[in-house]
Amino acid sequence: MNSDSIRKLFEQVRRGKISPDDAVQRLRHLPFEDLGFAKVDHHRALRVGIPEVIFGEGKTRFQFAEIFARLARHGNNVLATRVSKEQFAAVKKKNPGAEYRALCRTITLQRDFKKYGKGKIAVVSAGTSDIPVAEEAVATAEIMGNEVEHLYDVGVAGIHRLLAKRRVLFDARVVIVCAGMEGALPSVVGGLIGAPVIAVPTSVGYGAAFKGVAALLGMMNSCASNVSVVNIDNGFFRDRLFTPII
Amino acid sequence: MNSDSIRKLFEQVRRGKISPDDAVQRLRHLPFEDLGFAKVDHHRALRVGIPEVIFGEGKTRFQFAEIFARLARHGNNVLATRVSKEQFAAVKKKNPGAEYRALCRTITLQRDFKKYGKGKIAVVSAGTSDIPVAEEAVATAEIMGNEVEHLYDVGVAGIHRLLAKRRVLFDARVVIVCAGMEGALPSVVGGLIGAPVIAVPTSVGYGAAFKGVAALLGMMNSCASNVSVVNIDNGFFRDRLFTPII
Amino acid sequence: MNSDSIRKLFEQVRRGKISPDDAVQRLRHLPFEDLGFAKVDHHRALRVGIPEVIFGEGKTRFQFAEIFARLARHGNNVLATRVSKEQFAAVKKKNPGAEYRALCRTITLQRDFKKYGKGKIAVVSAGTSDIPVAEEAVATAEIMGNEVEHLYDVGVAGIHRLLAKRRVLFDARVVIVCAGMEGALPSVVGGLIGAPVIAVPTSVGYGAAFKGVAALLGMMNSCASNVSVVNIDNGFFRDRLFTPII
Amino acid sequence: MNSDSIRKLFEQVRRGKISPDDAVQRLRHLPFEDLGFAKVDHHRALRVGIPEVIFGEGKTRFQFAEIFARLARHGNNVLATRVSKEQFAAVKKKNPGAEYRALCRTITLQRDFKKYGKGKIAVVSAGTSDIPVAEEAVATAEIMGNEVEHLYDVGVAGIHRLLAKRRVLFDARVVIVCAGMEGALPSVVGGLIGAPVIAVPTSVGYGAAFKGVAALLGMMNSCASNVSVVNIDNGFFRDRLFTPII
Amino acid sequence: MNSDSIRKLFEQVRRGKISPDDAVQRLRHLPFEDLGFAKVDHHRALRVGIPEVIFGEGKTRFQFAEIFARLARHGNNVLATRVSKEQFAAVKKKNPGAEYRALCRTITLQRDFKKYGKGKIAVVSAGTSDIPVAEEAVATAEIMGNEVEHLYDVGVAGIHRLLAKRRVLFDARVVIVCAGMEGALPSVVGGLIGAPVIAVPTSVGYGAAFKGVAALLGMMNSCASNVSVVNIDNGFFRDRLFTPII
Amino acid sequence: MNSDSIRKLFEQVRRGKISPDDAVQRLRHLPFEDLGFAKVDHHRALRVGIPEVIFGEGKTRFQFAEIFARLARHGNNVLATRVSKEQFAAVKKKNPGAEYRALCRTITLQRDFKKYGKGKIAVVSAGTSDIPVAEEAVATAEIMGNEVEHLYDVGVAGIHRLLAKRRVLFDARVVIVCAGMEGALPSVVGGLIGAPVIAVPTSVGYGAAFKGVAALLGMMNSCASNVSVVNIDNGFFRDRLFTPII
Amino acid sequence: MNSDSIRKLFEQVRRGKISPDDAVQRLRHLPFEDLGFAKVDHHRALRVGIPEVIFGEGKTRFQFAEIFARLARHGNNVLATRVSKEQFAAVKKKNPGAEYRALCRTITLQRDFKKYGKGKIAVVSAGTSDIPVAEEAVATAEIMGNEVEHLYDVGVAGIHRLLAKRRVLFDARVVIVCAGMEGALPSVVGGLIGAPVIAVPTSVGYGAAFKGVAALLGMMNSCASNVSVVNIDNGFFRDRLFTPII
Amino acid sequence: MNSDSIRKLFEQVRRGKISPDDAVQRLRHLPFEDLGFAKVDHHRALRVGIPEVIFGEGKTRFQFAEIFARLARHGNNVLATRVSKEQFAAVKKKNPGAEYRALCRTITLQRDFKKYGKGKIAVVSAGTSDIPVAEEAVATAEIMGNEVEHLYDVGVAGIHRLLAKRRVLFDARVVIVCAGMEGALPSVVGGLIGAPVIAVPTSVGYGAAFKGVAALLGMMNSCASNVSVVNIDNGFFRDRLFTPII
Repeated sequence: MNSDSIRKLFEQVRRGKISPDDAVQRLRHLPFEDLGFAKVDHHRALRVGIPEVIFGEGKTRFQFAEIFARLARHGNNVLATRVSKEQFAAVKKKNPGAEYRALCRTITLQRDFKKYGKGKIAVVSAGTSDIPVAEEAVATAEIMGNEVEHLYDVGVAGIHRLLAKRRVLFDARVVIVCAGMEGALPSVVGGLIGAPVIAVPTSVGYGAAFKGVAALLGMMNSCASNVSVVNIDNGFFRDRLFTPII
Repeated sequence: MNSDSIRKLFEQVRRGKISPDDAVQRLRHLPFEDLGFAKVDHHRALRVGIPEVIFGEGKTRFQFAEIFARLARHGNNVLATRVSKEQFAAVKKKNPGAEYRALCRTITLQRDFKKYGKGKIAVVSAGTSDIPVAEEAVATAEIMGNEVEHLYDVGVAGIHRLLAKRRVLFDARVVIVCAGMEGALPSVVGGLIGAPVIAVPTSVGYGAAFKGVAALLGMMNSCASNVSVVNIDNGFFRDRLFTPII
Repeated sequence: MNSDSIRKLFEQVRRGKISPDDAVQRLRHLPFEDLGFAKVDHHRALRVGIPEVIFGEGKTRFQFAEIFARLARHGNNVLATRVSKEQFAAVKKKNPGAEYRALCRTITLQRDFKKYGKGKIAVVSAGTSDIPVAEEAVATAEIMGNEVEHLYDVGVAGIHRLLAKRRVLFDARVVIVCAGMEGALPSVVGGLIGAPVIAVPTSVGYGAAFKGVAALLGMMNSCASNVSVVNIDNGFFRDRLFTPII
Repeated sequence: MNSDSIRKLFEQVRRGKISPDDAVQRLRHLPFEDLGFAKVDHHRALRVGIPEVIFGEGKTRFQFAEIFARLARHGNNVLATRVSKEQFAAVKKKNPGAEYRALCRTITLQRDFKKYGKGKIAVVSAGTSDIPVAEEAVATAEIMGNEVEHLYDVGVAGIHRLLAKRRVLFDARVVIVCAGMEGALPSVVGGLIGAPVIAVPTSVGYGAAFKGVAALLGMMNSCASNVSVVNIDNGFFRDRLFTPII
Repeated sequence: MNSDSIRKLFEQVRRGKISPDDAVQRLRHLPFEDLGFAKVDHHRALRVGIPEVIFGEGKTRFQFAEIFARLARHGNNVLATRVSKEQFAAVKKKNPGAEYRALCRTITLQRDFKKYGKGKIAVVSAGTSDIPVAEEAVATAEIMGNEVEHLYDVGVAGIHRLLAKRRVLFDARVVIVCAGMEGALPSVVGGLIGAPVIAVPTSVGYGAAFKGVAALLGMMNSCASNVSVVNIDNGFFRDRLFTPII
Repeated sequence: MNSDSIRKLFEQVRRGKISPDDAVQRLRHLPFEDLGFAKVDHHRALRVGIPEVIFGEGKTRFQFAEIFARLARHGNNVLATRVSKEQFAAVKKKNPGAEYRALCRTITLQRDFKKYGKGKIAVVSAGTSDIPVAEEAVATAEIMGNEVEHLYDVGVAGIHRLLAKRRVLFDARVVIVCAGMEGALPSVVGGLIGAPVIAVPTSVGYGAAFKGVAALLGMMNSCASNVSVVNIDNGFFRDRLFTPII
Repeated sequence: MNSDSIRKLFEQVRRGKISPDDAVQRLRHLPFEDLGFAKVDHHRALRVGIPEVIFGEGKTRFQFAEIFARLARHGNNVLATRVSKEQFAAVKKKNPGAEYRALCRTITLQRDFKKYGKGKIAVVSAGTSDIPVAEEAVATAEIMGNEVEHLYDVGVAGIHRLLAKRRVLFDARVVIVCAGMEGALPSVVGGLIGAPVIAVPTSVGYGAAFKGVAALLGMMNSCASNVSVVNIDNGFFRDRLFTPII
Repeated sequence: MNSDSIRKLFEQVRRGKISPDDAVQRLRHLPFEDLGFAKVDHHRALRVGIPEVIFGEGKTRFQFAEIFARLARHGNNVLATRVSKEQFAAVKKKNPGAEYRALCRTITLQRDFKKYGKGKIAVVSAGTSDIPVAEEAVATAEIMGNEVEHLYDVGVAGIHRLLAKRRVLFDARVVIVCAGMEGALPSVVGGLIGAPVIAVPTSVGYGAAFKGVAALLGMMNSCASNVSVVNIDNGFFRDRLFTPII
């Protein structure tokens, strides 16, 4: 039951075919999809071009291809993250426009190339090993309709490299900082700029890095007050800039 | 807006005062309380006598007393857990029927004494130190309208004491087992009976007991397949038997 | 020594061949299997058709096949969980009726198809990746003699999909909810219904999901008071409904 | 050495009193405060009215009062967090305009009441016990020059209360969600809106809540992709909206 | 039902007042205390003079005094650990022979001073701060009827002090080593002697000592293969030497 | 420098070739191996037939074979644990008497078959999956010259199987209990007997078993006071009975 | 037995009163203190003026005073850390020269004021709250005979303050950096200089700082390769510069 | 912009082509690389022969080879750590002088063989399995221009082997100690010598060794006050001796 169904219900009430009391009763059991926040959500998705997103890990090739097909059917941009080569192979044939970025294991099927985001998003990666995570962030931001700039290899150990690119940071509406090991880069970036910093801990490091836990804790305890943190290796983050409301 | 409001809406549509399209629009923004699962929930609460419950910890005396007063107003049973003596003092004056069980720090305000639960609930405590948690479970079960039997001090170290009370365990519809230290008692009870066992790890113990973590892990890994676990020191658990649907 | 042995002991006492004092002495060293809870347990198993269960992991193919053969001999239903393809191959020849569900890695050898459970069990899986765990729960519930309904892909991110299936939840005697990542689904389900919710954290997720620990903690701390938790990825749970006592 | 010093250096070069090579040499050892990002930072602070902030915990009354005095001297708004009553007493005399909010332990000394933020900030607290943390967020946002709306007591257990306030959430530029226990609220809010959600885990809860760790992990693993997380009980967060650049 | 009850049962069978079949039926429900291992255990306790032991923590003064009185009644040695001064006061009046060792918070009520243990027990404490735990071990060993020697302050930092006392270690039947911080002492002792070493991690230390966890882990991973470990600060350990079987 | 060297030193002093003062000086720098505890240790090893032990993991095939050869040269029993098939192959040729137990990955080269241990050692394994660890304990105990009895598959879930073998437990001088999952078996065994129990947590289990951590914690917190614990999956434990001193 | 004893032994051998073989035998049991590394250690202590150090925590006032008295007797500098006011009071009377630094809870009894250290030690504290730990490091370094410079309040959030003091860092032989929260300061300092950096995590911070664990992990994972770490809040560190060998 | 650019700026000021005020303005935005610490750092690197270092893990073969080529171009020594065979193959062709040490997975390209370090560095490994980590330390120290001595297999279990090599330890300027399992060796070494000890926990061990965490904690809590700790398995440590300042 959708909007039309509800309209029909009201029509029936108007025509006296169904009493207000009965209508109330029916309404009480309406799937919320058709009444509530979900539907609005759906409308907004169509309106602003947010791509549908699939998380590939843990899905069989068949499941993955089915879901991809269903989403691709709507004509929207489609983004899939954590995709294996095998999963991409299962999708490629029917979706020749789908692109696989092996480095960050994403599939992007882009049909709408309009820039919706106001301002640029800067994606900063501390070391070469953090690039795959950063690339996932780039892929996400781009398919959401943003202009993105990626600063490579500007970790704390070579802080002058970061400072040399300060202009990019100052100009960004939001900065996504990917770093492993001690995860100190977001604190430094956060101290330099006024815009919010999304810190992405990566599992880069060894020993007591505990697969990103050290970086995560470092970022959580940042003394820069504009830093907030997402999951380890989680380059897929949807910021306000990604989803502007018209 | 409530049921009546919706009825009025339909009335207005019936009378042609508002078009179906506009009605759909209005409906979309109705507080869900009046339409959805929340209301049903509220009705059910009144119907089956589930007491309202307040968690005392972290609330000021004023906040606590205000919330208690609001709930007591409905004539239902009221249960408050983790209550300090000061919080009870703030409540006692206006609610002379309210009882404070100092051991488990609960307030019970019981008006409806009918037994709703089918069968008995057995609450088992491993050691003397686990009794406060077990008493919270007893208070909860009783005010929900169940018959409860408490087995004291039947830990693994004196397993014969438990076995001597097997009959109580066999007769119970559900057994709540409170234990600290290594938390092995639920496994033993779970192996003895067919009914489900709710394991409550307590923070009793020292050193590597880590305030209930050892017991929690022991219970999570129970080789008895009818054991499920709730939070550490959480004697407040609502079982199916507690909330029968008529 | 079994029931018969004890009877013989009493016979000997009755015939005066052995004094009461000596009989007491002998009795003191009887294997408990023949006197105590274990035997009763065995009888009950035969009576109510609970299947024998084997945990496959960590057993050699030979060990696994031997144990399976021994259990299958009794004519009961047999359930094996965490089974590898190789282990299944070792069993398949002698037990042509044994079925392997590759998704959840269980073997079911069903001979008794009677429904023992009162009411339905709903098994809810949050995402596609949680299905293997949920399927283990389904396999377990079914071979125990229950009617089971599985709700797929109704995670918090698309809560309307869950709400659309509310009827199934309301009708269930117990709901088993499998979820990974933040593990918030059991709280939502627990808030909707009166029946107990068994929360199964899955290792689905990445980074700070810590292979199910985040979901486990989320579920342990659920503010819904009818939620209890079992081990990570542990779809094998035996509820009261699974093991009715006649 | 400051701006003036540099100017003098250039003057000396211009007058030929010092060679370009020597000037380069001197410049190389200039304190960065006078040349680099720090100064810019300072200018920006004056320009946009960001208050100076003091973290009270672990400072002696004397230290605290000294720092407060130094910051108050500039005429800016001053914010102090985690302040004890004793620390406030030490400050109050010399700063009669300073206000102490006992609930969230902040001091605010507000001189500039202009609203700099574009749009509103919604601060959402799950339960009554989360209010102190939420109030710190409110105090921070307000003194930064934002319009703030606080939604009290809209936790997952009573999700209809949240939904009834959806309008506030939809209108917010950023939503700060404070929740303890399983920390599921940000996921639900994140699923409802397009704006970014800053999740603040609180130490509210008991047992396996581990003083906010369970909430933190739940939030880190949120399946809503617009949720990012800050430190436990950390109501002091500076968003982009807080620090607009003219 | 006890031994006598069973004898009566056999008498009834002998006299033909009850059939063997009925007797089997009755026997099946006998409390195991009277038949099984528990009773044997009780007999052994009386025979070998093992003192009864009470864990004081978490018990009210009343509970503690009641339990103490019950145990003291049997004339055995009584040991109580983790006892507060208040708990001792509640016991002292009725048991003038009870001694309180404030350092290790034990009460000992010794009536039987015979030495049962074969050989000596050496109790080794690494630093001055570990002495309270070591004293609990000494109190336990002594009241169990052992000869005990305590080596004070022989930590790894002054290994020559330990070596100077090697003779004591060589002569011991079992060595109990109490150490905090990195917990390396048991490894060193274990490497020196052939007898088993019981390692007791203490919560002495700070920072990353994590209240004994570092010591515990160090001891668990000892490269000396005769080291086994008990709980943090757990000076109460019952070794074979403590409980000789005649 | 060894015993002979020291003797020569004294000879030189006796003959007046070196002054006492110079001798003291030289002695101060003697390798302790020849003077101190190490040598005694070596003598004892030869005397009582303790096998030399090699830990295989992390050693190259060449390193492993070299060390094995060096130890085998002395004619003692040799034990190697955590050995790969490849490591065994590198050893087998030169040591035809060496036996590889694939299940527990040990090599035993036994030349001395005399029983040194007084009394029996019972090795108890909770489940089939714990057998490899238990077998390592058996191999260790046997090559040390003890009589060993292994009780298989007597976990808590089938406690009657354990009780049926009580006689073996009562007769043992020390009981080694290997268990995974919740690790409750040592507590039960510890409650039954007077002899010390060495608890070996195994990594058997899944999810919140955390590769043996749950079992480890359960055992550390055992309420049976004669239980001490060794490392996870560490079947190699040397008890006093293993190394009697003549 | 000491050096003299050994000399006497040699004398006896020389005089033929004891045979070389018997002397070897006696020597084997000499306390190592008189022969081995311990004695050398003692000599070195006297020679280079290393103060004796007492760890106050966990010692009774009596124990503390006794140990202090014994050490003060030698005329060396004495350092006591983690000292309570009460412990100081117990010491003050007999040692009028002893100074108590309340901020870092140390007692220093300095008699030898010579500077032994080559070069300066810089002690850097990130924030005001880290000063107590830094002061302990200062006290330690000074009493060891070093010249020390303390840089206050130069955390990452105000990196220009640190850079303005670069000269101090460049000139130091070793830099001790005390920081809490995310513990990023040592990485930044380590990147600036060639000298080794000793990182001291402090327990300053809240929530996910976990009392210094976040700082500790951050420092352990520092991408600056000249950073090594000591225990949380451990300002007592003895560097090579502290203990020069003449 | 570099040194030359600044010189040009001054030239322009000198020639009056640009005013001092404008120059100040321009200077404010200079990349710090050309003004600040970074450049100095670069100069120092050239001057003292510190090799450039690459961390291999997580880099593609192409990335690795590119970075290696760029660094090798400067004629400095080059060190690469955590290098796979494939990465080495990609580098070998163009850099025939590059050596691969398979055991510790490093590449060293040494052109400058001068010894810069004052004194020797001793690298101590506890067991055979710790050698790979120790070898990384050796490779690092050597290419930095130090004389290095490696003591193999001198763990706590055979402490006499360590003591026999005391001379090496006494002579070292710094001692790097690599140990796994309980990580007690650095404490023992630290107690023997005056020089600083860098403790390197290794992931050698099993079960509760938690891949080096037990060793790490043991070392953090060392009672020897000259021990500081680096990351698990982190043989790459740059000490002051490695980087002398001329």
